[in-house]
Amino acid sequence: MTELTEVQGGVTAPAGFLASALHCGIKKAGDPDLAIIYSEKPATVAGVFTMNLVKAAPVLHSQKVVEGGVARAIVANSGCANAVTGEQGKLDAETMARTAATCFGVSPYEVAVASTGTIGQRLPIDRIAGAIKKLAPAVNRHGGEQAARAIMTTDTLPKSVAVRVPLSRGKIVIGGIAKGAGMICPDLATMLVFITTDASIETQLLSRALNAAVQPSFNSITVDGDSSTNDTVIVMANGASNAAPINDLSEDYFAFQFGLQHVCARLAEMLVRDGEGATKLVRIHVVGAVEKADAQKIAKTIANSLLVKTAIFGADANWGRVMAAAGRAGVEINPDIMDIHLSAVAMLKAGTPQNFDEALAKKLLTQKEVDITVDLHMGNDSATVLTCDLSYGYIKINASYRT
Amino acid sequence: MTELTEVQGGVTAPAGFLASALHCGIKKAGDPDLAIIYSEKPATVAGVFTMNLVKAAPVLHSQKVVEGGVARAIVANSGCANAVTGEQGKLDAETMARTAATCFGVSPYEVAVASTGTIGQRLPIDRIAGAIKKLAPAVNRHGGEQAARAIMTTDTLPKSVAVRVPLSRGKIVIGGIAKGAGMICPDLATMLVFITTDASIETQLLSRALNAAVQPSFNSITVDGDSSTNDTVIVMANGASNAAPINDLSEDYFAFQFGLQHVCARLAEMLVRDGEGATKLVRIHVVGAVEKADAQKIAKTIANSLLVKTAIFGADANWGRVMAAAGRAGVEINPDIMDIHLSAVAMLKAGTPQNFDEALAKKLLTQKEVDITVDLHMGNDSATVLTCDLSYGYIKINASYRT
Repeated sequence: MTELTEVQGGVTAPAGFLASALHCGIKKAGDPDLAIIYSEKPATVAGVFTMNLVKAAPVLHSQKVVEGGVARAIVANSGCANAVTGEQGKLDAETMARTAATCFGVSPYEVAVASTGTIGQRLPIDRIAGAIKKLAPAVNRHGGEQAARAIMTTDTLPKSVAVRVPLSRGKIVIGGIAKGAGMICPDLATMLVFITTDASIETQLLSRALNAAVQPSFNSITVDGDSSTNDTVIVMANGASNAAPINDLSEDYFAFQFGLQHVCARLAEMLVRDGEGATKLVRIHVVGAVEKADAQKIAKTIANSLLVKTAIFGADANWGRVMAAAGRAGVEINPDIMDIHLSAVAMLKAGTPQNFDEALAKKLLTQKEVDITVDLHMGNDSATVLTCDLSYGYIKINASYRT
Repeated sequence: MTELTEVQGGVTAPAGFLASALHCGIKKAGDPDLAIIYSEKPATVAGVFTMNLVKAAPVLHSQKVVEGGVARAIVANSGCANAVTGEQGKLDAETMARTAATCFGVSPYEVAVASTGTIGQRLPIDRIAGAIKKLAPAVNRHGGEQAARAIMTTDTLPKSVAVRVPLSRGKIVIGGIAKGAGMICPDLATMLVFITTDASIETQLLSRALNAAVQPSFNSITVDGDSSTNDTVIVMANGASNAAPINDLSEDYFAFQFGLQHVCARLAEMLVRDGEGATKLVRIHVVGAVEKADAQKIAKTIANSLLVKTAIFGADANWGRVMAAAGRAGVEINPDIMDIHLSAVAMLKAGTPQNFDEALAKKLLTQKEVDITVDLHMGNDSATVLTCDLSYGYIKINASYRT
């Protein structure tokens, strides 16, 4: 069993990764809004991107970088998504990459770019290019936490994690940062997630590990059912650790994948906990399904139900809404044999409503973490989806986000 | 061109229909919560019901009534949905029907039943049966408006409409009542809609006309994306008008269908206007689609986007959210050729963001009715979906609906 140790530093925790961030003037308040993550050595790279047909210009550029298989840096800004900005937007994304590439003496196709913020507005590209020229020489070993802050939009907290993973020879570190906090219902990826590792791992294996790690983490969360135009997860592996290189599906590969999964799962949970207006983390477990895909479909339908989410916000044990959501998920179910638990309290057993302790249910539903468990009693597969409740705060944040 | 005249009276506007309502004790506040609609003559009947796999007990009974093809009465209660109530719930629904049937001297399978309210709670069936015995002898020509009140849950206003339709010989009247106001994203039907007509029309033709009328009305609205367990639309035609009978796909049939469509469309719009917490009616028009189904899929995705709905609540011209929703609808689109208008203001033309007058956009978005028009420029088909904005009021209503 691989033993993971959490360490400080986020994306600069792995050897050979440097970062820096500053306020270049896109965000109004003076908070950092531009970050660079740089690898001292060429790194293998893998990425997953939004399935939204409306893809932002930086996504199109970064997809080319991932296709190339090698990366040296990521440049990311918050406050403006550079999405639906036409040909000019594509030029702006390339200018971001090229400016950093020139500073570091690498190819523009080794520099991934990412943007997050309002859709349909142009980047202030001159200001960004000027800021990149200041930021590039300033990258340092302690810049990971500042980079996590620079990619925040409506997030209330920076999201950063790093783990040390022992391999057959030596140890590697995997670090990651992420930003949410709305437009979160990823379809292959979530808003922005950058992961670094000093493992030495081939591009194909890195891509395989990333896809395995994304499914139970970023693809199993939702805040509001809206997939963004800019969803991006990029992982860079620079081999700076001098631990055993990973060249095949060895035990070391699975140790690495285990570590990567842990990083993704931790960041995904942080995204949901900090979901726009969220007061509670809700874990939706659907068990007893014939197929995993069925379980996930039902869990996602429950997780995206406004009626379920508002009931959880109000600590109201309205389990009937869970049942109604399950019934419209497009999966064959038999209501007469199902069980539903809200946290530890049985609400429905074999299709029969239970007399439950209202006071106990209320008490459990006012906790910071709530579980909803649905047993279909049809098979042996299951899925868990993480979501948050829907509060007045979500409306407040989103009624005037742009203006 | 058939000329429709709106008349007073709702479901008791057509000849030969009587109704009554009272407070039997399910709702807390003393508001009416039980209604009977009765036809003096046997009526042909058609219905569409929820596609949710979790179907309430009254839905199962009423489906049998519709299969029988003839109905005499509808008994409906609010405050309790009699859904997910097991075998006992089915017995309770049958008791509702049988009690009314005995009072009127008809078969229980000529009495449709409907319930709306909290899911998973048993009906107070003894109290309901007692109340039915009082209500049945009290049915009268002016009971339509009271019946509309008795089926309300979170609705703030009763919803009732009636139209007079000239046929080749004589005139008929079609009346309807409906209730919303949450769990509205019908899939073949919406919460509760009862329609009466004194037309003489064969069951098969009635069913055909109803299905045609439901698609652009109740199947083209959404409040919160949640389909209910109790969605029911029932139409009864008793032939009491002595207008020309409708026995084939004649001009009279199409005049009838036109009238029925009008009643359904008016009720559907009332449902959305009175959506839980709604402050605005939003019409989403998707044009230039290859297939109608594509247009409707995109329109529904936009209509259900929390981010779009909160932006409209905040009168924020955040058209990028419309684009992001269109991109995740699962329909092939080309972002580079699309146009988007918010009310009368062009936001995007041929994929290029427009410089627009912010003050004018704000002014138009603060109106009670807002239009969102998306032109895909791919074909000639289109669809319109009605929705409402998402406000603090929705959260307030749903955070403690049950308790």
